[in-house]
Amino acid sequence: MSEEKTPQIGIVLGSKSDLPAAHKAAEILNQFNVPFEVTIASAHRTPEDAAQYAALAEDRGLEVIIAIAGLSAALPGVLAAHTLLPVIGVPVSAGTLGGLDALLSIAQMPPGVPVASTGIDGSKNASLLALRILARKNEEIRKQLTLFREEEAQKIQQGRETIVDLPNAPAEAFLMFRPLS
Amino acid sequence: MSEEKTPQIGIVLGSKSDLPAAHKAAEILNQFNVPFEVTIASAHRTPEDAAQYAALAEDRGLEVIIAIAGLSAALPGVLAAHTLLPVIGVPVSAGTLGGLDALLSIAQMPPGVPVASTGIDGSKNASLLALRILARKNEEIRKQLTLFREEEAQKIQQGRETIVDLPNAPAEAFLMFRPLS
Amino acid sequence: MSEEKTPQIGIVLGSKSDLPAAHKAAEILNQFNVPFEVTIASAHRTPEDAAQYAALAEDRGLEVIIAIAGLSAALPGVLAAHTLLPVIGVPVSAGTLGGLDALLSIAQMPPGVPVASTGIDGSKNASLLALRILARKNEEIRKQLTLFREEEAQKIQQGRETIVDLPNAPAEAFLMFRPLS
Amino acid sequence: MSEEKTPQIGIVLGSKSDLPAAHKAAEILNQFNVPFEVTIASAHRTPEDAAQYAALAEDRGLEVIIAIAGLSAALPGVLAAHTLLPVIGVPVSAGTLGGLDALLSIAQMPPGVPVASTGIDGSKNASLLALRILARKNEEIRKQLTLFREEEAQKIQQGRETIVDLPNAPAEAFLMFRPLS
Amino acid sequence: MSEEKTPQIGIVLGSKSDLPAAHKAAEILNQFNVPFEVTIASAHRTPEDAAQYAALAEDRGLEVIIAIAGLSAALPGVLAAHTLLPVIGVPVSAGTLGGLDALLSIAQMPPGVPVASTGIDGSKNASLLALRILARKNEEIRKQLTLFREEEAQKIQQGRETIVDLPNAPAEAFLMFRPLS
Amino acid sequence: MSEEKTPQIGIVLGSKSDLPAAHKAAEILNQFNVPFEVTIASAHRTPEDAAQYAALAEDRGLEVIIAIAGLSAALPGVLAAHTLLPVIGVPVSAGTLGGLDALLSIAQMPPGVPVASTGIDGSKNASLLALRILARKNEEIRKQLTLFREEEAQKIQQGRETIVDLPNAPAEAFLMFRPLS
Amino acid sequence: MSEEKTPQIGIVLGSKSDLPAAHKAAEILNQFNVPFEVTIASAHRTPEDAAQYAALAEDRGLEVIIAIAGLSAALPGVLAAHTLLPVIGVPVSAGTLGGLDALLSIAQMPPGVPVASTGIDGSKNASLLALRILARKNEEIRKQLTLFREEEAQKIQQGRETIVDLPNAPAEAFLMFRPLS
Amino acid sequence: MSEEKTPQIGIVLGSKSDLPAAHKAAEILNQFNVPFEVTIASAHRTPEDAAQYAALAEDRGLEVIIAIAGLSAALPGVLAAHTLLPVIGVPVSAGTLGGLDALLSIAQMPPGVPVASTGIDGSKNASLLALRILARKNEEIRKQLTLFREEEAQKIQQGRETIVDLPNAPAEAFLMFRPLS
Repeated sequence: MSEEKTPQIGIVLGSKSDLPAAHKAAEILNQFNVPFEVTIASAHRTPEDAAQYAALAEDRGLEVIIAIAGLSAALPGVLAAHTLLPVIGVPVSAGTLGGLDALLSIAQMPPGVPVASTGIDGSKNASLLALRILARKNEEIRKQLTLFREEEAQKIQQGRETIVDLPNAPAEAFLMFRPLS
Repeated sequence: MSEEKTPQIGIVLGSKSDLPAAHKAAEILNQFNVPFEVTIASAHRTPEDAAQYAALAEDRGLEVIIAIAGLSAALPGVLAAHTLLPVIGVPVSAGTLGGLDALLSIAQMPPGVPVASTGIDGSKNASLLALRILARKNEEIRKQLTLFREEEAQKIQQGRETIVDLPNAPAEAFLMFRPLS
Repeated sequence: MSEEKTPQIGIVLGSKSDLPAAHKAAEILNQFNVPFEVTIASAHRTPEDAAQYAALAEDRGLEVIIAIAGLSAALPGVLAAHTLLPVIGVPVSAGTLGGLDALLSIAQMPPGVPVASTGIDGSKNASLLALRILARKNEEIRKQLTLFREEEAQKIQQGRETIVDLPNAPAEAFLMFRPLS
Repeated sequence: MSEEKTPQIGIVLGSKSDLPAAHKAAEILNQFNVPFEVTIASAHRTPEDAAQYAALAEDRGLEVIIAIAGLSAALPGVLAAHTLLPVIGVPVSAGTLGGLDALLSIAQMPPGVPVASTGIDGSKNASLLALRILARKNEEIRKQLTLFREEEAQKIQQGRETIVDLPNAPAEAFLMFRPLS
Repeated sequence: MSEEKTPQIGIVLGSKSDLPAAHKAAEILNQFNVPFEVTIASAHRTPEDAAQYAALAEDRGLEVIIAIAGLSAALPGVLAAHTLLPVIGVPVSAGTLGGLDALLSIAQMPPGVPVASTGIDGSKNASLLALRILARKNEEIRKQLTLFREEEAQKIQQGRETIVDLPNAPAEAFLMFRPLS
Repeated sequence: MSEEKTPQIGIVLGSKSDLPAAHKAAEILNQFNVPFEVTIASAHRTPEDAAQYAALAEDRGLEVIIAIAGLSAALPGVLAAHTLLPVIGVPVSAGTLGGLDALLSIAQMPPGVPVASTGIDGSKNASLLALRILARKNEEIRKQLTLFREEEAQKIQQGRETIVDLPNAPAEAFLMFRPLS
Repeated sequence: MSEEKTPQIGIVLGSKSDLPAAHKAAEILNQFNVPFEVTIASAHRTPEDAAQYAALAEDRGLEVIIAIAGLSAALPGVLAAHTLLPVIGVPVSAGTLGGLDALLSIAQMPPGVPVASTGIDGSKNASLLALRILARKNEEIRKQLTLFREEEAQKIQQGRETIVDLPNAPAEAFLMFRPLS
Repeated sequence: MSEEKTPQIGIVLGSKSDLPAAHKAAEILNQFNVPFEVTIASAHRTPEDAAQYAALAEDRGLEVIIAIAGLSAALPGVLAAHTLLPVIGVPVSAGTLGGLDALLSIAQMPPGVPVASTGIDGSKNASLLALRILARKNEEIRKQLTLFREEEAQKIQQGRETIVDLPNAPAEAFLMFRPLS
């Protein structure tokens, strides 16, 4: 993020322990050169901070909020209750249930207040979803998404070359298929 | 509840559809003649009401809050974040997952902010738990709890008499065991 | 939807049996007077239709796609693979697992292709999420969302009046709390 | 715990293997300088001990019981059956199901005998819940809880400073938000 | 059960609402003419009754105990803790989780105190398991079990004749296979 | 099935109660005019029948076995252990867990003996899978599958016409999309 | 096991990988000096061996069969189908679902053929359950079970002494409670 | 695979990270000397490749497709939608839910498009299932399957010899049983 630019995406972590998930989200946003900010605000331990952050987000120029939390992950819903920006919730696999608790806490919002849930530990996809939303107004991001998608496809296609490592496997496996694509 | 008495227990519903659960909770409290109040305040649709209710609860004389909610049931945790009163959360079996979503949302609170979860649709037990807490300061409630426990035991014991309805079953079944008790 | 307006939201059902969910989504969009279209395209039975629909969506003027599907609900992910528009997935509680299968199928997208999952049977929230996205470019929708949120809050607050129906319950319950708000 | 003081909280472990959970509970209670005791009493292997402990608890001066157990965690319910004190149950993630078995065993109490369930491995919150209950009679604990809550909030706020470690992340991230709080 | 005979099997229900399950268990035992008794004793509401019942069971001549309970079904484990008789636990599908809570509560016993769990609502199999245990000492029951098994097999084989009701189905389907058996 | 033709597919039910699932499977096979047979053979109540059926299946001219069972659905695996024909297992939603028990019992086969699991209550797909296998040797079935697939697609496309019933919905919705396909 | 004695308990493993579970079962049986045998017989890979083992078990002098298996654990049910001895099933936590698959496969037997399920990885309890069954005919084992139960209780009570290791914990914790027992 | 032979089985991975599963599948196919090919084609990141691969598979001479994928594993269903070959889906235990998400995504296909699901991480069984299908046309593979089955049975039987390692276990355990087989 260029410091002088207004952040367009606000990433909010429910706990310092969610930082690794923030790294994955930030990596994508940096790759797209989209200004963002990261903060920590717990729905349970700093509820006023969380409410205020969401309430001020739109006026501060944010376009999308990404909320990352584990366990009974109330953060995305609480933020969504205090803003009309799109809120993307990322359930984190903290605890012993593999993140199923956080997924249900985030996804199963009652009717009236929407949250966009990603998969468990899905902070990379959270950034990509935020970028798709930004791209509705920003042609540059739109173009980058096209490139990104092509690169992702190329990675899959290049991955075929690793198949030759398969013991006793078909050496030409990836070639057989490549002409098709 | 005698209208002139200050409510000691505040029952908060996340939605009007949780009223049946409130009835079960209220029935016990009326039986114990403990003043209580009931309101609806959604963590997502009226978050300021919920926060304010919790923040003012102690000064208004409440001793315990019972929060009843389904789906991604953030209400108990949000209330617990704004008060230092004991908060009892009742997961409701709204939706299609039998209340497992609400149970995980309520029980799996992150360390630092406690919520006392009952079982799914456990609003009767929520009242009984609240009464156990009140009984620490109120000898009268303490005595009533003893009586209540005895009555519950007697209901079990009297239930044995229904066993004679068992087709081809031992007519004297319940008698055999009664001398033991 | 006024027929003359270009649809901004495309609702895609995986099956005719998902029509009730479409009704709930449509009700909100009609309320906001946002032009939308509804179609049925199965990821498994009409995969080319689904792919083509997604591929053409942006050029046809759509801003957001809502995909509604049950069981192994591949539709949202398949649409997201063929467009760069934001795709909102609604897991439907078809089958015998209460929609847990569809929720996992929709939410657990691999990194690279994002889908915004709502809760099970969450088509109302899907529309509200789509409207939050549209509101980033459309001040009119933004204003309507503010009104909608206020109305939702008022419904909660008015719901308090129904509490007087609680047998032996505090007749003034809802009044006690109203002065606080 | 000052040895001369009467314990106010009794922590009961279902098994010696639950000691780590007891440490987390004890740490909080020591921090609040609240006298407590710890013992081991299995609902299945020393059922009379468990029953007797619960039956005598109130006369011995205890105010709250915390019961920590894994697997088919009958201990909290069995203790609650033999006392009228509030019983807090902590499901432990022993076994291979991440503690879901213990959570259901503890939370899903039948109507009539309440247990306050925390989340899985939630012994820290169990102590905090016990302290909230004690605070209804003890102004000193009430004050300490206020301080504790503030410290917890400060930890969250200070955690924002660690965000500068985010690779290529916004160096001023935490500052941006701090003025808001 | 002939009233004059000492019961060999004790069926204990955790609640009056478990009576239908007791009917299924009793039907089998009556069919085998094995004396049994039925009672109700809750692990949580009449814990002393439950403990005493188990403690006296062996001296009263019982050979096996069948414990039927739902939700956090502590009853089988509590009985097993107070007797050395084999205890068979039947998880009942009370509540909203289809009996998964009861199954885990009954099956996941900690090492040291065994309970034999049947499937959910498996009271018929509980009786058959009890009979297999009795048959180790009782040749008559052993012979009846052989007959019962043959009858069960015949029911399966006779069920094949119902296949002719299959619309457009192979009219001779069941005959085709019968020569094989 | 034409009675004179040798059955190519054997449908085995674990219980008479699985007949509705057999109807759905039979409907497809009759539609394709593929000779099949239906029988009932329980892995637990008539294990020799089940073993013998599987052991003789190949010599009797069967090409594929479809095994339909609920609960701890051992039937597909047991049949697969006694034959080298492809065995398709259909988990039935008997019991109270929505068929999750049967799905896991059928799908989670240990390495060495394969079973092809369909979804819960997936007997229609079981027949379609069997037909795909038969089509590897039978050009006629291959052609019918192509037609079937086209008809299924047409049903989806025709389903779009029902969308006009959507209250206040876009009357031309289905037309909008049709030109695209 | 003394080699000259006829085995009374047959332990059958579904796979060589289940040997650790067999060790835990054997340890108890050796402690009780009860002759047993161990073998491996897969319900899927050596179905005839499994069937034959069960069919001959009673004539070979066995009294109880313990079947240990993971994944879609058909072994206990298949053995129970071929014998009238009590069969105890031990679900093993092989695979990635923590043994939930095996637990459901073993516990959810259809009515007519009973299996006694222990908890996941519950082979120690399987032996104890088998011993309770043997004790119905063997006074010596009955006496040993009484001693075993007392030793287990003493282990719990002695475990209280380890509590002094609790940092800043009540040094006299275990003493406080000991006088009660 | 002999390079000159036309592949009969196509193994498609949803991601490079699924290569270990491909190894297990390939090992079996190499053992049977059946020509196969391996490629990577993501349903979400290279959807056209996946669709084209499936659409061309039959003309390229493939007989069966094995699709291996984790998380919201749409690949098997998407391939099945574009081909009439039998498609075997292997759910991979990627992510934090042990593969339950992939199992449900693969198994719970809507009626009309069948996928044959194996168990989680069941790629060995996927190959064996594919071989059973090939064996319907290929007598040589049929013979090899018979041998394979015998070898698998022998491995189980030889595994009995390892039981002598059981501490204090019956040294002759495996011998006792061997005469039976």
